[in-house]
Amino acid sequence: MSGRGEIAAFLMDNHSFLIATHISPDGDTLGSALALGLALESMGKEVHLFNADGVPDAYSFLPGSERFSSSPAHGRETVVILLDCNSAERAGIGEQVFPHSAVIDHHETESDYGDIKWVEPAVPATAMMVHELIGSLGVKTTPEMATNLYAAIAIDTGTFRYSNTTAHVLSVAAALVEAGADPGYIAEKLYQNWTDNRFKLLCKYLSTLRTEGRIGISYVSREMMDSTGTTSQDTENFVNYPLLIEGISISGFLRENEDGLWKVSLRSKGDINVAEIAAGLSGGGHKNAAGGFIRGDVEEVRKALLSILKEKTSLS
Amino acid sequence: MSGRGEIAAFLMDNHSFLIATHISPDGDTLGSALALGLALESMGKEVHLFNADGVPDAYSFLPGSERFSSSPAHGRETVVILLDCNSAERAGIGEQVFPHSAVIDHHETESDYGDIKWVEPAVPATAMMVHELIGSLGVKTTPEMATNLYAAIAIDTGTFRYSNTTAHVLSVAAALVEAGADPGYIAEKLYQNWTDNRFKLLCKYLSTLRTEGRIGISYVSREMMDSTGTTSQDTENFVNYPLLIEGISISGFLRENEDGLWKVSLRSKGDINVAEIAAGLSGGGHKNAAGGFIRGDVEEVRKALLSILKEKTSLS
Repeated sequence: MSGRGEIAAFLMDNHSFLIATHISPDGDTLGSALALGLALESMGKEVHLFNADGVPDAYSFLPGSERFSSSPAHGRETVVILLDCNSAERAGIGEQVFPHSAVIDHHETESDYGDIKWVEPAVPATAMMVHELIGSLGVKTTPEMATNLYAAIAIDTGTFRYSNTTAHVLSVAAALVEAGADPGYIAEKLYQNWTDNRFKLLCKYLSTLRTEGRIGISYVSREMMDSTGTTSQDTENFVNYPLLIEGISISGFLRENEDGLWKVSLRSKGDINVAEIAAGLSGGGHKNAAGGFIRGDVEEVRKALLSILKEKTSLS
Repeated sequence: MSGRGEIAAFLMDNHSFLIATHISPDGDTLGSALALGLALESMGKEVHLFNADGVPDAYSFLPGSERFSSSPAHGRETVVILLDCNSAERAGIGEQVFPHSAVIDHHETESDYGDIKWVEPAVPATAMMVHELIGSLGVKTTPEMATNLYAAIAIDTGTFRYSNTTAHVLSVAAALVEAGADPGYIAEKLYQNWTDNRFKLLCKYLSTLRTEGRIGISYVSREMMDSTGTTSQDTENFVNYPLLIEGISISGFLRENEDGLWKVSLRSKGDINVAEIAAGLSGGGHKNAAGGFIRGDVEEVRKALLSILKEKTSLS
């Protein structure tokens, strides 16, 4: 395992970079890549930004987001940096070969990809690492870099509501606001970006909640998405609504895929570990946020999920 | 107008204090009062905490909240501090007479109450002022004080999502976490404290939304509260849901009082000023958050409010 110093040397020593972000991109991977890319360009480097899936509309406000390409084409001298991910598969770069490669990530290492790796699982957002890196490269943080980093940290900490919010996170956020990030503007762009149709889907969705003891189970079927003109992307964050209820400690959210398989999302409060439950559903994740899959009709999958959650947690 | 120095001298010079918080208390008034009270007690002072309406359940997690009394009884030597309000009426202290009085507030001064006044309308939360004051009194911030101040600042900044979130606010938040406040715990207590019934009311409420241009109008009737076993307190924050929709710039929320009068809450994004509209509805408030009253049946009041909002904002 390498560290920030080796990564800084790698950035200094090379000239042309492909910064690869993870598939199904989120604010942390995109904002971190944009900030790093802008910093490298200010040092006179050549930067290509890559995301296999393209930038979701919700993140088009990130300064420079139009620069992302969904093709990993690159020159012979171009080196690659995987950002907020650590495997070629997760980065969507397939069999592409690069003369050198580096990884900057805050997820537990799953692969041996990367000549140089800087992985800090205890850090809440990759953007925290990029902020530190930009400082050690001697680059001044511009308002555009600050906005990207602030948005990235906001997404991965629930805008300072999750338990990974530390004094250091808040200090870095303060420094980014000093550098030009606008907290009110960023929050509006991140959270007040719904379509009318997504709002209609939320109304339908909330009424599906059934609770038993400290468990809440809810769902979105294909029919609900079809009738409101929405897609699976519109269900992002829905799993958290049942946790508004004080008595609910585990939220299990089912979303019907096109092939009739149900994607299961699990969220828990406090010490309840849902990662183990997800592992039994062909999935995985973290202690308080994990996911997997179940097959069946809606009543069957609700019943099956409830019984798994009851058994594994002895909560009811 | 006095300042922090005069307030600090007032706190040093007197021994027995009644700290009065505003009616319909929120997190800022309660958390600020508790932190100041704990600081004064650590200096050997006698402190009485007063709120005319009592502490809502949602704030019972604030350390020391059980100390609030709803009687403003006090000794002959007891002086009064109005916190997060500036009139005897708003503080609910009626005709009570005190040998000396002070005001610490971040609302525009409306009254001439108080021998000493420290009012800072540009500061996002009274707790920011109390934090500064505790520092200038030379009192070390305990974890209990830090939790109260952090929760108070969180409430008045939407936990760092509103446009009043500055670098200084985030720095103070970082200092409070260093002093023992737990961001994840506080966010859970502030936001994940709903009853099942409140969640049911939300489901019913969301489907009342009607939009026209950039205006969204929604309501909660007495019947909706009665059928879900909820009260007007349970509608707190509902007005913000329509603003999740990107195209909505003004949210008008109607809540039916027991006497058939409708309380109007208005929220806006950006430069749209709803305070002027509220003034025409026997109410008032700030640029992006204001309120007033309308009388009529539900269809009448929806129509009336829509036409007022259209006229005043020329948005449709």
